[in-house]
Amino acid sequence: MTSLSPTARTTLGRKRNRAATERATLYAVLDEALICHLGVLRDGAPLVLPTGYGRDGDTLYLHGSTGATSLRTAAGEIDVCVTVTLLDGIVYCRSVNNHSVNYRSAVILGRPREVTDRDEKMHGLHVLTDHLSPGSWEHARGVNAKEFAAVSVIALDLAEASVKLRAEGPDDEPSDVAADAAWAGVLPVRTVFGEPEPSADLPSGWAVPEHVRARVTPTAATIR
Amino acid sequence: MTSLSPTARTTLGRKRNRAATERATLYAVLDEALICHLGVLRDGAPLVLPTGYGRDGDTLYLHGSTGATSLRTAAGEIDVCVTVTLLDGIVYCRSVNNHSVNYRSAVILGRPREVTDRDEKMHGLHVLTDHLSPGSWEHARGVNAKEFAAVSVIALDLAEASVKLRAEGPDDEPSDVAADAAWAGVLPVRTVFGEPEPSADLPSGWAVPEHVRARVTPTAATIR
Repeated sequence: MTSLSPTARTTLGRKRNRAATERATLYAVLDEALICHLGVLRDGAPLVLPTGYGRDGDTLYLHGSTGATSLRTAAGEIDVCVTVTLLDGIVYCRSVNNHSVNYRSAVILGRPREVTDRDEKMHGLHVLTDHLSPGSWEHARGVNAKEFAAVSVIALDLAEASVKLRAEGPDDEPSDVAADAAWAGVLPVRTVFGEPEPSADLPSGWAVPEHVRARVTPTAATIR
Repeated sequence: MTSLSPTARTTLGRKRNRAATERATLYAVLDEALICHLGVLRDGAPLVLPTGYGRDGDTLYLHGSTGATSLRTAAGEIDVCVTVTLLDGIVYCRSVNNHSVNYRSAVILGRPREVTDRDEKMHGLHVLTDHLSPGSWEHARGVNAKEFAAVSVIALDLAEASVKLRAEGPDDEPSDVAADAAWAGVLPVRTVFGEPEPSADLPSGWAVPEHVRARVTPTAATIR
């Protein structure tokens, strides 16, 4: 499956030219971002909470404490919404009105299922760990029985998803371009990883392991 | 008002020690982040969309085309949820299970009102512009009558809000610390502004104006 299959709900109502139709674009957004915003229904109103996730093929895994309201609500009778947004730039135009942002955003709708199969649940935790901190599954101590029992994993199919993006320069009125009375351009926005900060209780012999070191953004290593 | 006034909905169900109670913390999160995730109810299910916002005192302004579904739905009979999240770091622990993130997150619940008063609507647009691109309100061409009519501004009171955060090192089990078998620490995550990219149709005489230039993150200026 290489194209998204929009339903009435995921077909954009406006600015259709901003809709991406390649499934690879959906995957790229999900794989690059670090967190999602999970929308659930609580007492008849939407509640939106940031949370981690991981993707394996066309399955999105989410997890949390077995006591967390959001997950109990999410694995229920009502569809949820998972939205992942990457902000890429601020678009300055000659007119205030045309100011905009460059971004890539994925919206996934569906009814998640709680993962109860033991093997899939452990696989889901592996996928979640690989997303947040690649290499940690191999480096750190594994999940023990008590920890395994205390965590819930839910799975959401990527069947109903849409991707929207803007990735271009200013879109000014011709009269404003002709007037040449203001600057126009894009201020790029980037998410970077700074210099790792070892735990205060870590013995001095430890070097930052390569799976962490390799993530540091070269030109941002001094940003604290 | 210097403290948040939690209701049953905004009192954290778990990890209460992660709740911030200072109103200044709420303001700081809202003023630092660039976009929010707006949760509305559509056809009985939550829909979460990224959007811009701006804050003036205890009022949050949102805007969009008068034709946008999300705003029409937002200014309705049902509460909405606005969530703003800053991701500050990835927390590597000795155990996979204790891996976490450092973050600051604000959740605001309420029933927004559409701003119909002409002066307040223009003020809302000013606040929104100052948030996205400070200085542009003074630098760029102002909003004309046609543009003013085509945009909707809604206002949400910050009365019902909660802030949750984690800002600390690894929280490992004592037995894992004693075993000393894995690295632990924080990988800082930062949002930075790169070198401005002038519009392709901008005459060559333009220098990047100071209100844009001043936002560039010094050590990240070469990040494209």
